[in-house]
Amino acid sequence: MGKAHSNAYRQVARFFPELEAQPVLKAICGRNEAEVREAARNLGWETYETDWRKLIERGDIDIVDVAAPGNLHAEIAIAAARAGKHVLCEKPLASSAGQAKDMLNAVEQAQVKHGIFFNYRKAPTIALAKHLIDDGAIGKIYHWRAAYLQDWIADPNFPRVWKLRKEIAGSGALGDLASHQIDLARYLVGEITEVTGMMTTFIKQRPDPDADPPQLAEVNVDDATAFLARFANGAIGTFEATRFALGRKNCNRFEINGSKGSLGFNLENMNDLEIYTQETIAGTHGFRTVNVTSGADPYTAHYWPHAHIIGYEHTFINVVYDAFQAIAVGAMPSPNFVDGYRCNVILDAVEKSAATGQWQEITF
Amino acid sequence: MGKAHSNAYRQVARFFPELEAQPVLKAICGRNEAEVREAARNLGWETYETDWRKLIERGDIDIVDVAAPGNLHAEIAIAAARAGKHVLCEKPLASSAGQAKDMLNAVEQAQVKHGIFFNYRKAPTIALAKHLIDDGAIGKIYHWRAAYLQDWIADPNFPRVWKLRKEIAGSGALGDLASHQIDLARYLVGEITEVTGMMTTFIKQRPDPDADPPQLAEVNVDDATAFLARFANGAIGTFEATRFALGRKNCNRFEINGSKGSLGFNLENMNDLEIYTQETIAGTHGFRTVNVTSGADPYTAHYWPHAHIIGYEHTFINVVYDAFQAIAVGAMPSPNFVDGYRCNVILDAVEKSAATGQWQEITF
Amino acid sequence: MGKAHSNAYRQVARFFPELEAQPVLKAICGRNEAEVREAARNLGWETYETDWRKLIERGDIDIVDVAAPGNLHAEIAIAAARAGKHVLCEKPLASSAGQAKDMLNAVEQAQVKHGIFFNYRKAPTIALAKHLIDDGAIGKIYHWRAAYLQDWIADPNFPRVWKLRKEIAGSGALGDLASHQIDLARYLVGEITEVTGMMTTFIKQRPDPDADPPQLAEVNVDDATAFLARFANGAIGTFEATRFALGRKNCNRFEINGSKGSLGFNLENMNDLEIYTQETIAGTHGFRTVNVTSGADPYTAHYWPHAHIIGYEHTFINVVYDAFQAIAVGAMPSPNFVDGYRCNVILDAVEKSAATGQWQEITF
Amino acid sequence: MGKAHSNAYRQVARFFPELEAQPVLKAICGRNEAEVREAARNLGWETYETDWRKLIERGDIDIVDVAAPGNLHAEIAIAAARAGKHVLCEKPLASSAGQAKDMLNAVEQAQVKHGIFFNYRKAPTIALAKHLIDDGAIGKIYHWRAAYLQDWIADPNFPRVWKLRKEIAGSGALGDLASHQIDLARYLVGEITEVTGMMTTFIKQRPDPDADPPQLAEVNVDDATAFLARFANGAIGTFEATRFALGRKNCNRFEINGSKGSLGFNLENMNDLEIYTQETIAGTHGFRTVNVTSGADPYTAHYWPHAHIIGYEHTFINVVYDAFQAIAVGAMPSPNFVDGYRCNVILDAVEKSAATGQWQEITF
Repeated sequence: MGKAHSNAYRQVARFFPELEAQPVLKAICGRNEAEVREAARNLGWETYETDWRKLIERGDIDIVDVAAPGNLHAEIAIAAARAGKHVLCEKPLASSAGQAKDMLNAVEQAQVKHGIFFNYRKAPTIALAKHLIDDGAIGKIYHWRAAYLQDWIADPNFPRVWKLRKEIAGSGALGDLASHQIDLARYLVGEITEVTGMMTTFIKQRPDPDADPPQLAEVNVDDATAFLARFANGAIGTFEATRFALGRKNCNRFEINGSKGSLGFNLENMNDLEIYTQETIAGTHGFRTVNVTSGADPYTAHYWPHAHIIGYEHTFINVVYDAFQAIAVGAMPSPNFVDGYRCNVILDAVEKSAATGQWQEITF
Repeated sequence: MGKAHSNAYRQVARFFPELEAQPVLKAICGRNEAEVREAARNLGWETYETDWRKLIERGDIDIVDVAAPGNLHAEIAIAAARAGKHVLCEKPLASSAGQAKDMLNAVEQAQVKHGIFFNYRKAPTIALAKHLIDDGAIGKIYHWRAAYLQDWIADPNFPRVWKLRKEIAGSGALGDLASHQIDLARYLVGEITEVTGMMTTFIKQRPDPDADPPQLAEVNVDDATAFLARFANGAIGTFEATRFALGRKNCNRFEINGSKGSLGFNLENMNDLEIYTQETIAGTHGFRTVNVTSGADPYTAHYWPHAHIIGYEHTFINVVYDAFQAIAVGAMPSPNFVDGYRCNVILDAVEKSAATGQWQEITF
Repeated sequence: MGKAHSNAYRQVARFFPELEAQPVLKAICGRNEAEVREAARNLGWETYETDWRKLIERGDIDIVDVAAPGNLHAEIAIAAARAGKHVLCEKPLASSAGQAKDMLNAVEQAQVKHGIFFNYRKAPTIALAKHLIDDGAIGKIYHWRAAYLQDWIADPNFPRVWKLRKEIAGSGALGDLASHQIDLARYLVGEITEVTGMMTTFIKQRPDPDADPPQLAEVNVDDATAFLARFANGAIGTFEATRFALGRKNCNRFEINGSKGSLGFNLENMNDLEIYTQETIAGTHGFRTVNVTSGADPYTAHYWPHAHIIGYEHTFINVVYDAFQAIAVGAMPSPNFVDGYRCNVILDAVEKSAATGQWQEITF
Repeated sequence: MGKAHSNAYRQVARFFPELEAQPVLKAICGRNEAEVREAARNLGWETYETDWRKLIERGDIDIVDVAAPGNLHAEIAIAAARAGKHVLCEKPLASSAGQAKDMLNAVEQAQVKHGIFFNYRKAPTIALAKHLIDDGAIGKIYHWRAAYLQDWIADPNFPRVWKLRKEIAGSGALGDLASHQIDLARYLVGEITEVTGMMTTFIKQRPDPDADPPQLAEVNVDDATAFLARFANGAIGTFEATRFALGRKNCNRFEINGSKGSLGFNLENMNDLEIYTQETIAGTHGFRTVNVTSGADPYTAHYWPHAHIIGYEHTFINVVYDAFQAIAVGAMPSPNFVDGYRCNVILDAVEKSAATGQWQEITF
């Protein structure tokens, strides 16, 4: 994440030279001095710190980017806000809705700006999808159907890394992957009102990477989570997030069906949007693959010619562009901690439904 | 359905000349004499009847095919069995598990052979999928992910036809579409042990096609149904069936992920199977599109040269081929009323979970 | 071919019951009596003959279908025409343009009806493509780009079968595959005015299947042929036909680009047409995949519901339907021997250009 | 091009920190001082020049990147070489083979390093393709089949810009697009020995963008070019380059068929390589889509996690990485002016064959 965030700060003004408030990469922070010194040099930071508290105390810093592991988000973000820094935070915002609420309260009390790296919102394809939905191009929405599929832990001998420990990561596929889905669903379809779900751990013990002699350690997060949802506007949704879908590496895909058309997306081909609308010529209806690399969104005109595709890193550049544009004019970035908090509320509800077998109402 | 079934009986011996018991198309039955007379001529039947009871009394008939609307299946099938006829029935077997159980009891007591038109099992692609799974090619199964998407009633002005009336159709998308999904899941993954689901009717009133003057009539079946499932072997599943997915006409698709590979299918390209397995050359893993039109299954060698694709009707021809081969040697066709009954049990459980908000255990 | 043609005659009236002149399958002809007797029974013919001259003499036969190897087409077709039979012939019509001209002269002098099995014209997708082009939906045509790719002789140990002998087959990939491409190009784009091409035989000797002891025999037809073309309307075209494209089994694909849109087709997914036209919503242009299984063409309404796909055999059924409809009203089937002759003229020109290295003008 | 090249120099050390000779962006050159000053600031250059001769005289510059219009390449590159600078040049190298030969002679006499921006060679997918071919994974190559399709001048009212003027651009689709295809074919398949082709200008007059009052100006370059080729290793090839393929924006695609497998690529999905090889399980052969975003090539390990795709700009970063790695150790970059010259020889041969209607032998 540090690499993708650093790249975004370094590159944003190159593609968006009109940006009023251009980032200056003052300092990167990490606990291991040798590593952070090298990271500072490689990634283009002026200086480095080994204690995040020092970073926050520095007077030459206006904005703090929290890209630490999830269990540290709250402490850092709250401290940064209290020190008067604007805060941009990785997702999910917190390990629980309660913690997220504390963070939201802190930034609001400090009256600082806040943003969250739900970066897939900023893919040009998603920006176009949002525009089409808001314009009524697909009508009233009936269905949201999402699957975020990865396979990097399908091998039972893959070690019990920190992402498989609840005490650090908060949850497994749910927080890591479904949080992206929930944010996209809220952005494109609207608020979710109730959920029921299931969470599964297929491989319950894995090699402990730190154990000597070798031994197995418990996996206490979900390998896969699936849930059903109802939206406030009457639509229904299905969500699935897993790290056990062999052959799917980063397949964050969804389909939306409305009364006038449908939209489809897959992150692995993030420049393409599938669009179905009624055609003027009878008998020629079909989903069309739209290469979203020119002009119909706020971003692509700043990059390359039509069909010269962009990659993953540009979603971060776009997050930073939007956030800095907002901050430059005194506005609030979007998405922000409100979105982060609401996502955490829904994540908690999915977990509770999985534990109780009961539908959970969502209240913010 | 009459057209597809008739075609299957007419064509099966042309493609499978080795078939020992070849169908003779003795009589077709329908209530309207003019229509059934024309159907008999067009579809190649020797004679016709206008009362199904007459058909069952005839001594020149060994096998009865029940393709009437769902609410008539039980009465006809039970009477046919009691008359000593073998019975092949359209899906879903019955309107409820109780009714299905009565049908199963009837054929077992009469000691007649029975089969059910879960025809998609017989697509060559599905036969290959089954073969690969049984051979261990994709290992232990973790995920079943299915969506059966149509859009033919998305227009709110589409009339309230019989398929939208619970008293005739039993249910909506659930019985019509999810029954196919449930059968494929049972066939390929294994038995389902519990489900929780949701059912929705987006358009609650539609024009009554029989009303004069025009008036609206209530829709009392589901427009869309989604549910989560656990399988006996530890896999988890998601199911969705809808008639409101604009642009999807007959998109019966699923993906299965196992510990060694994955499989994907979409009925709209029913000759293709997506297969992911580990490759011998590093860095060249990917889903491959396999055109299943030659030899690796029991059917394609009887049809056309490689990549000269077959269509929808051949799934019915294959059902008839398998059923007649079984009956010729005194064996029981597969799938049969046991599969039909179990599917009805699961359909009932989904409905109950949707009504109660509770997970339902499946017991046969 | 006998199987596909027989199926078409047997099935056409089942799907097109309004057909005025329904085929009666009087007699099939083959040289081996045991084999032709079995074929007659399996494929549904009333009787059989072992000498095609006998068949032509029979008074109960109105139409002769010539599906023999290419080097026999002329003799049979000419004799049949002189006997006053209507003649339907497999493609390519003849082994040379001169021979094709003789055949055309014979049917015209005898004033019988004639047709040719350029069956891919009759795929519903192609019928829709033709309709769109004639309607101006893609504007003035600039490009035709076609590749017909197979791989069944890529193995050097595959034997030197009759299709690899010029004296029987006339040519290799050129006559077998490019003839289909040429016909589709003429149908959809218009007449070709000049060509230049290359022909290659990658494996020049193969095992002789009849030799004992084993020995190699010369392959004297093309393994692959490619050519460039100019059309009368100013469009340019590329054609490639090969039996050495590993992984491509029956990939007969083309793309047409016009001033207002584009069309794409691949026989391996013969129910889908790719269509690109300008959209009303800016930034949403893209090729759409249209599942041509309902109503916009003359055929699909006679088959199955939307997106319940048809297979290869239906192109033959449609050829027979169109031909019999024409003959029933005294009209000439289309395509017919004129199309067959013109295709042979172009095939000869490609061969001559490959031999001389010179562009060849096309004159009919 | 200036933007993509500048980005590559700026970014290369961020992704490849081990690079020994890291670029320092000393000066950018342009004729309009206001514009070049702004470009220098936006793109990250220390200084700027308005006369390329000044740039070449500067002692603080070791490497000159020639990204000017094609008709200026020779003069600048030759002068830079004579001044002892290493030279990296945009493609095509020159407007003619003769000019290219002069450039090659110049760099060789000056004993400077030289490279050319045939950037698509450096896409990870192409690097993997090259690796597979060299490893024998697809066997002996039989076919190269390439189409580079764009549509940006299909509108007859699009003005006669400089790319449509032979005196500046050299040629149209041929030099601009086919040069990329020729380089990829040489890289992946081998040397071309003879060609025959056709060139077409569909719209012969267009609005002159500089005319007042409005008037039409002649287009004297090709809108589309197609040619056939023979390779030294016995393979045959088809090439097509056009700016009139509606719906295709930057579709640089090819397919290679060998005796053991096939490869397919389309620049619009530049992270995916289509691979066909024989499978160990019978009946499961098919093209697989490989997302080349991890480790099997020299580049992807430096970027993002698996299936987090990269975009167009990374091909330039990879060109710069390879060239600087070579220069750092005193080696010659690849591709270089030899490749540029050979490409120009083939471009000239295509033009001559189009003018004469004769096959042209290629001699370097």
